[in-house]
Amino acid sequence: MITVLRLGHRPERDKRITTHVCLTARALNADKVIVSERDDRVVAGVRGVVDRFGGPFEVESGVPHRRVLRDFPGEKVHLTMYGLPLEEVVPRLRWPEKDLLVVVGAEKVPREVYEMVDHNVAVGNQPHSEVAALALFLYAVQGPAAMRKRFVGGQVEVVPSARGKDVRGGAPDDAAETGEGDGSFDGE
Amino acid sequence: MITVLRLGHRPERDKRITTHVCLTARALNADKVIVSERDDRVVAGVRGVVDRFGGPFEVESGVPHRRVLRDFPGEKVHLTMYGLPLEEVVPRLRWPEKDLLVVVGAEKVPREVYEMVDHNVAVGNQPHSEVAALALFLYAVQGPAAMRKRFVGGQVEVVPSARGKDVRGGAPDDAAETGEGDGSFDGE
Repeated sequence: MITVLRLGHRPERDKRITTHVCLTARALNADKVIVSERDDRVVAGVRGVVDRFGGPFEVESGVPHRRVLRDFPGEKVHLTMYGLPLEEVVPRLRWPEKDLLVVVGAEKVPREVYEMVDHNVAVGNQPHSEVAALALFLYAVQGPAAMRKRFVGGQVEVVPSARGKDVRGGAPDDAAETGEGDGSFDGE
Repeated sequence: MITVLRLGHRPERDKRITTHVCLTARALNADKVIVSERDDRVVAGVRGVVDRFGGPFEVESGVPHRRVLRDFPGEKVHLTMYGLPLEEVVPRLRWPEKDLLVVVGAEKVPREVYEMVDHNVAVGNQPHSEVAALALFLYAVQGPAAMRKRFVGGQVEVVPSARGKDVRGGAPDDAAETGEGDGSFDGE
């Protein structure tokens, strides 16, 4: 099982980026996201995507990061541009034998986080995006299986298409709404 | 050469996501980003990162997407959850023999875009994030070289570290500022 912990979320400022973090976690075969700061709108938006496109996928908010980090029984990784290279750390991870917690911050990650995890991992030592870092990390850990999750229980399913929008179970423009009208990948 | 075209940017709403798109393109070894709608703040923020962390990397905004798509001499790919699977399309791309244009939309990508590109590519047929899709696509096309660009001419350099922040040429907290104070990956 893979859980993503999103830290430092500021509801006004980070709503869309945090939603992208959550949807990326879901699409790349993580099982759950915990947002440390409470934000009911983000949670509702992500649950809306799970209702329409399927699960299983869990999301909750308002769980202090210190508690999550302290209580998590598996291996804990923090994605940071200051960390050790991805390709060096990933082969040492014990997933899937042990559960994996992947921590992604917004601004100003508290110093203690660097100490409370097993690995600080850099997806490149350049500043970019926690969304990109999470996607590349989840792919590096799982390989192509990251994109092959079978989602069940949704209302709609996208059928791959060379030129158009082919959706089973709903109109394309309904299908791709993320429940927030935000700019998520094809949330159009 | 790899160019990223960002479509449908709305300055107030998309400033941070578009900045993440630009920084992800830079970190994953693309050469240039064109934002179709003009936004001087986003351009200045990205150029600030190039000044501090190095280049070469170009960014411009305010170039209508139709013109970019019409005039681009190489192969054109649009990332969309409705497209054909990544693993099916990437082996057919002619990069690096031909230049590559990677189109990423925000909401409501105009229908014509689907027709003006050579390939509509899905990085998973699930709604997630154009930032994640771009990162995974650039990695799929280039392999590990995507994360091995040698940046030159910057003021600072991050040294990989197991626990802390080790930066050559500046204080860590200066180093990681993205010029926008936004929540980019470790923009803390």
